[in-house]
Amino acid sequence: MLAPVEHRVWIATSADCDQAAGLLFDFNREFGEPTPPVAALSRRLAALVEGGDTVVFLGGDGPDGVAVVRLRPAVWSEHLECYLAELYVRPEMRGRGLGRAIMEAVLNEGRRLDADSIEIGVDEPDLGARHLYESLGFTNRVGAGDEAVMYVYELSLRGR
Amino acid sequence: MLAPVEHRVWIATSADCDQAAGLLFDFNREFGEPTPPVAALSRRLAALVEGGDTVVFLGGDGPDGVAVVRLRPAVWSEHLECYLAELYVRPEMRGRGLGRAIMEAVLNEGRRLDADSIEIGVDEPDLGARHLYESLGFTNRVGAGDEAVMYVYELSLRGR
Repeated sequence: MLAPVEHRVWIATSADCDQAAGLLFDFNREFGEPTPPVAALSRRLAALVEGGDTVVFLGGDGPDGVAVVRLRPAVWSEHLECYLAELYVRPEMRGRGLGRAIMEAVLNEGRRLDADSIEIGVDEPDLGARHLYESLGFTNRVGAGDEAVMYVYELSLRGR
Repeated sequence: MLAPVEHRVWIATSADCDQAAGLLFDFNREFGEPTPPVAALSRRLAALVEGGDTVVFLGGDGPDGVAVVRLRPAVWSEHLECYLAELYVRPEMRGRGLGRAIMEAVLNEGRRLDADSIEIGVDEPDLGARHLYESLGFTNRVGAGDEAVMYVYELSLRGR
């Protein structure tokens, strides 16, 4: 773990979406997931940002980290609910607090928008991410004694 | 378990939102969760349905069951992704296949809309719901050998 440093984090405009798309492309390549080409992903991100239901955060000098947050009106209140769809920091920049700095900006923006809550789906083996989220107050626990967990269940609707 | 029967399931219009709101109100009361009054919830549901990002399903003669599905454009494709926000069947109507009939309508509508996938957050102790979702093909498993699970992490942005 290197010493934490100050990181600049900002909300991307559609003009920043090439950089954000490059990071998301590298994210999926690193984890062996399919990804559209950077240009297509950049156009997609720009459309989402302009559509108003998506906030993209960039951080670091590269930039070296990205987060994609989705917003929607809640069912049970008149407020918004947030979903962290993506969070990525370049491998060589990890361990310096950039992911935490981006997440703090995400939470600040959620509060500024008067959102009720934020959710994330996290794979059990992603211990680094789970530690970061837990240290920020996120929980995967339910029940009076926190004795149970909350699962993501998913189903592809393709090829059936 | 009573014998399964044919259940009528339909997509609610804003005119049906009073009935859907009544079911959602009973849902939260049954599980001791706070809920807005039925009239406020009905207005909220109608606004979401009219806004186009929400599909409400009703089922049974009462109606006796409700599902709320949220839609949004995906990040990684040009398609939609679905999220099952709520599913409820009145206690006295359980065990007759109504929840399954509603879920089949949800999946059919997702496919009709050409959505990529559908996600649900489920608490570990909700064994009946988990069994239903698993029997429909949903999984909470990741990894080559399905050896790990996916968690929901959440954080309230209120009162901090």
